[in-house]
Amino acid sequence: MSLRDARVAIVGMGLMGGSLAAALKASQACREVIGIARRANSISMALTFGFIDRGFLDLAEGVADADLVVLCTPVRDILAKINTIGPLLKPGCVLLDIGSTKKAICEAMTSMPVHVEPVGGHPMCGKESSGLNVAEAGLYRGRVFVLIPLERTSPQAQALASELVTAIGARELRLDPEHHDRVVAVISHLPYMLAVTLVNAAFGLAGEDPTPWRLAANGFRDTSRVAAGDLAMMMDIVSTNREPILAGVRGALRELGEIEQLLISGDDDALLTRLRAARQHRREVFP
Amino acid sequence: MSLRDARVAIVGMGLMGGSLAAALKASQACREVIGIARRANSISMALTFGFIDRGFLDLAEGVADADLVVLCTPVRDILAKINTIGPLLKPGCVLLDIGSTKKAICEAMTSMPVHVEPVGGHPMCGKESSGLNVAEAGLYRGRVFVLIPLERTSPQAQALASELVTAIGARELRLDPEHHDRVVAVISHLPYMLAVTLVNAAFGLAGEDPTPWRLAANGFRDTSRVAAGDLAMMMDIVSTNREPILAGVRGALRELGEIEQLLISGDDDALLTRLRAARQHRREVFP
Repeated sequence: MSLRDARVAIVGMGLMGGSLAAALKASQACREVIGIARRANSISMALTFGFIDRGFLDLAEGVADADLVVLCTPVRDILAKINTIGPLLKPGCVLLDIGSTKKAICEAMTSMPVHVEPVGGHPMCGKESSGLNVAEAGLYRGRVFVLIPLERTSPQAQALASELVTAIGARELRLDPEHHDRVVAVISHLPYMLAVTLVNAAFGLAGEDPTPWRLAANGFRDTSRVAAGDLAMMMDIVSTNREPILAGVRGALRELGEIEQLLISGDDDALLTRLRAARQHRREVFP
Repeated sequence: MSLRDARVAIVGMGLMGGSLAAALKASQACREVIGIARRANSISMALTFGFIDRGFLDLAEGVADADLVVLCTPVRDILAKINTIGPLLKPGCVLLDIGSTKKAICEAMTSMPVHVEPVGGHPMCGKESSGLNVAEAGLYRGRVFVLIPLERTSPQAQALASELVTAIGARELRLDPEHHDRVVAVISHLPYMLAVTLVNAAFGLAGEDPTPWRLAANGFRDTSRVAAGDLAMMMDIVSTNREPILAGVRGALRELGEIEQLLISGDDDALLTRLRAARQHRREVFP
């Protein structure tokens, strides 16, 4: 089946699910976009925005005739749904998720009924704010979308997932789940932990003095931005990616500890070497 | 003397000096804007951009008839100039600087000849890129501009410095030098050290694997941004603000060490409390 003929059901009408629906509708890439949410208000909003063709509060009803179901809820909810949604899906239905960690999810997917075609996914995008009201069709455009087919996933099912990635303007990258989780620990979860570290350390150092917050400029704002993100999402990530995050935190503790020692010893040449390395690396990644 | 009647000489035609010149010209706030730079190319560029009325390569010539001189070079160069520029200035000349740390500079200012009126300054703005080609009249608009008059600074000289701050659209805040340096260590220098920590730790963890840099998204980009900043400027800051920066780094090591322990122990409730505190603090500072 090609995407053009497919009914796509999106479970979760938040920022990610809403934006996915919007992107599919904007590109007229599939036969129908179905939205499933817990709250009636989300469905009516998504209908008003023109993001979906039909909306359901009941999961079984919503996914009943879908050819492709995309789980767009936090990781622990995705895990719960993977364990229960199988019997609700029609034979050959492709089940994609967009959870932030992949090892636990792909492991759970291996136990799904054989008539279902599971594929893990993770689009590398998001926003500081969450919710359907900030969803937009362009959210995925130009971004990497990791796809992780299981061994059991048929070439046809993989092709349908790839088509969806292309249709929303994203760039597909295939990884294995463990590799994915190690990588996102470094480039996504560690930045979060360091942003939290910055904010809490700064508040600890400032004490009752309000002056720092009157002076806080772009540097503090950008370095701390991700600390304002969604807590439930991050705790789901922690619970499913603890060891790689811990490795990241330990790497940062080593690096920061060495900076501390250089500040104490006054070896400014060695400190400069370290700052220069970071500057060059950063400029390689974001020219 | 009011700013309207003043000849303002700006020493250093980089991002900050160029933007200051541009802002003064754009608001027609003073009698004349004089630019002083080491390279002839900077002078001709500043003239072409309409940022200055006259330009000089020679410091003595450039500041000879100035009523207000603003030092817009890195901290160590400002310190060197404070020790030598006095005899070049006419009686009553106000000498302002915009260096990133203030204790060492304000101490050096106390030894200037008595015919000079020194005032320490620090505008809380900047850009990732440096240089005259990214200068803009709006750089200071709406930003806090710290002013630190010395005990010897006359009310008239303080008023002229205040007028300049207002003319470029900035908001004046008076602090003492030690307080300023402690505050910027927390909200500016610590973010830099944590950005360096993130980049170097991430590269250490990634090793030869290029995948992280293909996946690096907004979170990594923003949290690491300041690590791409100017190295010479940062080393000047380190050398003149070592103890407050060290206190910041130690605060961050404590906080990150506690996050490590919570990840190990699996006490996710305590971790959530910590993440929630950071989120609330961040949202207070940047609503």
